[in-house]
Amino acid sequence: MNIDMIRAAAIRLEGHARRTPLLSSPFLDEIAGKPVFVKAECLQHTGSFKFRGGWSALSGLPEDQRKNGVIAFSSGNHAQGVAYAAALHGVSSVIIMPSDAPRLKIENTRALGAEVVLYDRATEDRDEIGATLAKQRGLTLIKPYDEPLVIAGQGTTGLEIAAQAADLGVQDADVLVCCGGGGLTSGIALALAAEAPSFKVRPCEPEGFDDVTRSLASGKIERNEKLTGSLCDAIITPQPGDMTFPIMAAHCGSGIVVTEEEALKAMAHAFQRLKIVVEPGGAVGLAAALFHAEKTNASTLIAVTTGGNVDVSVFQKALAYLD
Amino acid sequence: MNIDMIRAAAIRLEGHARRTPLLSSPFLDEIAGKPVFVKAECLQHTGSFKFRGGWSALSGLPEDQRKNGVIAFSSGNHAQGVAYAAALHGVSSVIIMPSDAPRLKIENTRALGAEVVLYDRATEDRDEIGATLAKQRGLTLIKPYDEPLVIAGQGTTGLEIAAQAADLGVQDADVLVCCGGGGLTSGIALALAAEAPSFKVRPCEPEGFDDVTRSLASGKIERNEKLTGSLCDAIITPQPGDMTFPIMAAHCGSGIVVTEEEALKAMAHAFQRLKIVVEPGGAVGLAAALFHAEKTNASTLIAVTTGGNVDVSVFQKALAYLD
Repeated sequence: MNIDMIRAAAIRLEGHARRTPLLSSPFLDEIAGKPVFVKAECLQHTGSFKFRGGWSALSGLPEDQRKNGVIAFSSGNHAQGVAYAAALHGVSSVIIMPSDAPRLKIENTRALGAEVVLYDRATEDRDEIGATLAKQRGLTLIKPYDEPLVIAGQGTTGLEIAAQAADLGVQDADVLVCCGGGGLTSGIALALAAEAPSFKVRPCEPEGFDDVTRSLASGKIERNEKLTGSLCDAIITPQPGDMTFPIMAAHCGSGIVVTEEEALKAMAHAFQRLKIVVEPGGAVGLAAALFHAEKTNASTLIAVTTGGNVDVSVFQKALAYLD
Repeated sequence: MNIDMIRAAAIRLEGHARRTPLLSSPFLDEIAGKPVFVKAECLQHTGSFKFRGGWSALSGLPEDQRKNGVIAFSSGNHAQGVAYAAALHGVSSVIIMPSDAPRLKIENTRALGAEVVLYDRATEDRDEIGATLAKQRGLTLIKPYDEPLVIAGQGTTGLEIAAQAADLGVQDADVLVCCGGGGLTSGIALALAAEAPSFKVRPCEPEGFDDVTRSLASGKIERNEKLTGSLCDAIITPQPGDMTFPIMAAHCGSGIVVTEEEALKAMAHAFQRLKIVVEPGGAVGLAAALFHAEKTNASTLIAVTTGGNVDVSVFQKALAYLD
C-alpha cells in the first residue's frame, strides 16, 4: 500500500466520485473553540465514502475479471457503494446480507442493481455461501477494508482534504475520521503523510467499541468485546484490519472515543448548522471535534462525516436535542 | 443589469462563497422519469443562496461607503446572508426584524454579528425606522432582490450551474428555481442566457402564492392575494420585483406551481437520497422536478434547493412522509 496507489485511484475516480465539499460554520467553531471544517462524505454517491472504495476496486480490476461480476458481504454502506459502482460499470454484483437486515437497506441495494442473497445468521455460514457463489460464477470478492484497491479509493478523500485545506490556508490540523475496520482512516493517513505531513489523522470511535484506539495504545490488534448494541453500527467491526492496522500505527495519532449521545448531538449540529444529514457512526469524528477539542493540539480540526444513511427513527433521536 | 455584472460578482465571491455541489441520485431520476440534478445552495454559508447576494453587495460597495455599515430588512435568510457577509468584511450591519420573529432567527442573526433592531408590526413603520437609522449612521440599505449587486451575486449560482452541467455533458435542461422576489431567478436566467443558452429557467412557486407564474402568463406584474399561511414563507413576497420581473419575462419559461405537500415530500426525498436539509420554500424547485416533470420538455432537470433554514417541527412534517 502506498501513495501512488491512491493517486492512481484518484485518476480512476475523476468524474465518477464526487469531490465532496469542505463545510464550516462559525457556530461550530464556537462550540469547539477553534476552527472546524467538515469533509461531507455523506454527500458522496450512495450516501457514504464507501462508493470511493467500490469504484476504485471495480475500475482497478482487469477487464476480463471485472466482466464476470463482483461479490461483497455487507448489510450497509459497503453494499450500496459496491452495488452502484458495479451497476455504473455495467457488471453484475451479488451482495450477501443477513435476512434480518432492515428491509429498506435490502430494497435500496437491489434498486442500485445488485442481486441480494439473504442468509440466516443463526443457521448459515455466509463465508461458505459467498465462496460457493464466487466459485460458480467467477465473481471477485470486494472486501470492505483489508483490500489495497479499496484503501486506495478511500484514500482519495485524503488527497481532497489536503488540497481543500491548502486552498483555505490551513497550516496544521488534526483530521478526525470515524473508524471501523480502518480502510478510510488508513487511506487518508497515507494520503496526508504524502500531501500534508503536518496534518495528523485521529481515529474516532464510539464508547465500548474502541478497538482501534486500544490497539494503537497497546501496539497490537485488540478486539471489541461486543459487536452489537450501538447506534453507530456502520463503524462497528470486530477489530482493526490486518492490512489497515500497521498503516494506522505508523501514521495516526491516538484515537478519540465519544459517547453515543455526543454522536447524536453532532448529528443535530450538522443538521442545524451545515444542512447535512449524518448517520450516528458518521458523526463520531464531528463529535470528537465539537466535544473533545481539548484532546488535540492542532490549530484546526477537520472532521470527516463519513455517511448519512440513517433511519428516520434514529434521526429523530438527534433532532430531539434541538427542542 | 447584464452578464458582465454577474461575472464581476463571481470574481469578488471567489474563495468566499462556496461553489455548492450538483448532486443526484438514481432514485430521484426514477421518480421524475428523467435525470435530475440538484444545485445544493442550502449548503451555502448561512444555509442559503442569500450569502451570495450579501457578499456581492458588500464587496461591491465603494470602501468609503462600506465602512459606515449596511442595513437590511429581513426576518430570514437575507438577514443572515447580509449579517455574515458584513461581519466577514469587518463592517457593522443593522438588521430590522419584526419583534414576533422566531427567537432562534433573531439569535442567529445576532450571533452572526448583526445589530438586530426589533419593531412592532402592528404599531411601527419599519421603513421609517430603517430610513432614520440609515440617515443617522450613514448605513447603506441592501435590498433583498431589486438591487443590481444582489442580483449579480445570486446570478453566480447560474454560472456554476452552466459549468457543472457542461462537465456532466448535459446538453439541454430546464432549471427549476424557487422564486420569491425573483433575485435568484433573474440572476440565474441572465447567467444561463449567456453561458448555457439551451437551458431554460422555470420559476417555481407554492400554490396560492404564484405571483410570478401569473405575472409571466399575463405579461404584467400581478400580486399575491395573501402573504401569510404558507410553510414556504422564505419565498413569499407581495409581487415580482420591478427590476427582476422584466428580466424574468425576457428569459424565463412559464412558472410551475407545486403544493405544500409536494414541497414537504421533496424535502423528505432530499433527506433520504441526497443527505441534505432543505426548507419548504427551498424545496419547491425539487418538488417541481419530481412531481411535475411532465410540464417540461427538457431532457434533464436541474433543481436549485435554495435554503435549508428549517425549524425542527417543520422538518418533522417532511420526515413523516418516510414512515
